[in-house]
Amino acid sequence: MRIVVLAGGIGGARFLRGLKRAVPDADITVIGNTGDDIHLFGLKVCPDLDTVMYTLGGGINEEQGWGLTDETFRLKEELAAYGVGPEWFGLGDRDFATHIVRTQMLGAGYPLSAVTEALCDRWKPGVRLIPMTDDRVETHVAVTLPDSGSAAGPGERRAIHFQEYWVRLRASVPAEAVVPVGAEQAKPAPGVLEAIAEADVILFPPSNPVVSVGTILAVPGIREAIADAGVPVIGLSPIVGDAPVRGMADKVLAAVGVESTAPAVAEHYGSGLLDGWLVDTVDAGCVERVEAAGIRCRAVPLMMTDVDAAARMAREALTLAEEVRAV
Amino acid sequence: MRIVVLAGGIGGARFLRGLKRAVPDADITVIGNTGDDIHLFGLKVCPDLDTVMYTLGGGINEEQGWGLTDETFRLKEELAAYGVGPEWFGLGDRDFATHIVRTQMLGAGYPLSAVTEALCDRWKPGVRLIPMTDDRVETHVAVTLPDSGSAAGPGERRAIHFQEYWVRLRASVPAEAVVPVGAEQAKPAPGVLEAIAEADVILFPPSNPVVSVGTILAVPGIREAIADAGVPVIGLSPIVGDAPVRGMADKVLAAVGVESTAPAVAEHYGSGLLDGWLVDTVDAGCVERVEAAGIRCRAVPLMMTDVDAAARMAREALTLAEEVRAV
Repeated sequence: MRIVVLAGGIGGARFLRGLKRAVPDADITVIGNTGDDIHLFGLKVCPDLDTVMYTLGGGINEEQGWGLTDETFRLKEELAAYGVGPEWFGLGDRDFATHIVRTQMLGAGYPLSAVTEALCDRWKPGVRLIPMTDDRVETHVAVTLPDSGSAAGPGERRAIHFQEYWVRLRASVPAEAVVPVGAEQAKPAPGVLEAIAEADVILFPPSNPVVSVGTILAVPGIREAIADAGVPVIGLSPIVGDAPVRGMADKVLAAVGVESTAPAVAEHYGSGLLDGWLVDTVDAGCVERVEAAGIRCRAVPLMMTDVDAAARMAREALTLAEEVRAV
Repeated sequence: MRIVVLAGGIGGARFLRGLKRAVPDADITVIGNTGDDIHLFGLKVCPDLDTVMYTLGGGINEEQGWGLTDETFRLKEELAAYGVGPEWFGLGDRDFATHIVRTQMLGAGYPLSAVTEALCDRWKPGVRLIPMTDDRVETHVAVTLPDSGSAAGPGERRAIHFQEYWVRLRASVPAEAVVPVGAEQAKPAPGVLEAIAEADVILFPPSNPVVSVGTILAVPGIREAIADAGVPVIGLSPIVGDAPVRGMADKVLAAVGVESTAPAVAEHYGSGLLDGWLVDTVDAGCVERVEAAGIRCRAVPLMMTDVDAAARMAREALTLAEEVRAV
């Protein structure tokens, strides 16, 4: 079975770990979000790709869900001693190696997809991990900063990098717009459209529908390829009981005018793209609403408390795919 | 008193620490060798500049003489896990920060001299440290590699980076030639010629006469400026009793046809450049030979066993400068 998964960071990575356990022999291609990539200290950092790679490769810091286990932060402390920031982005001494190797390979002319493959040679995630694009896409968020007493004055509207919004500000101000800068000109990375065309099923894990899956879909050609693939496209709601399972998805959903509920996210994807949608059992009451929108829907437990729970979710998604296929 | 010092790495740095103690109020400008600079992991590494900066700034690993104290090597271990080397060059987690900041600033368009000044803002070495040039100069060493059983066959002649010769091979094969690649086209960094022109005395510490002081002198304009400065130029022999005080200076002296003795090094600099030369007391017998070459010479203890010993050497050098001036 050939499965294509569109993945963001933590939610996508944990779902993938469950999927691998559920169908160990499946041929899994992960199309990773790169809209949250950021250049820090002259290095190219790809947080979502790395979270998938580290999680599936057994290197992840389980507790925080990102970064490497057994990590230290001495280099970052030294950078701070030089007055070089940002201090709000956590890069550990071990993690730095990934960014240094990546930056060196990019500088030598390799595309990000080839670099990602080389990095995965070490981590052996057990899936084929492809960035959505080799082109530079950077998600920016329009915000109105609160009055800081600075010369900029109150109510200054600015576009800031997604990481600054997410990590530094912790989504503490409303996102007025979310723009994947560069996406319109981006081309899918080599292998992306081929994997979609050859897939038996396509899954949207409970990743952020705006800044993770939404950004991948914003790369011209990817949404169309998925819609045209003629295979079941199944999503899992990242919203449970009107709140994000983790993270702050509600903040960016508001920016695109989507309410923070499981059915609203399904409708946002739309029946032209999505064939099936899993909501949590607490949201069983909304199954009818989703099916009325032309999307087959089931209510199952969606809390990824451990790998077994994630595996059960993956099996439910594949079961729903079979139902869709049988129609 | 304005003092200009041409410095390599460990020997130069330890001498400078003594000089600062000997004349705390002196205005000291250090012209640092950059011929041993190397690009590693996409980062610009300047070993001699950093050794001076760390030593005078109190951060040096005293035992080994280079790198930072209280250092760890986790990033390097991760790079090795990616199969990315070289493993023979020791870059610690703290040290990496210096190279990252430097590389980032160079990438932003700042010349190495401005970058070095910015790095020194943190370390406060108490001297003005200027790289000999902002241009790229890289010392290469011609060697004949021993038969490694490889396809290259026995006796393959190659030019390798100085660091590869010095650190990886530990000068285990003869240096057939030492070439400061790029030196001929290099220009002295801003401030270098001005500092020389305004100096009251110019010192050559017991640094390597070929790959440290010699490389600085290979930048067009520097040798001439020193010769024309009209102030005492005093050197300290890095050779004591026919052997280098530390390092492997004899290996590269052979490459330029200079015997590894204190008087031979003085003659190599020559009376057109050098006014005074300090040899160790064990080499007192060669004072006459040096003076016969037109260079005033004294025999004093030249073993830098501690900062006080280095300070005494610095005082002897300044005393010899006064003698020269009085002539």
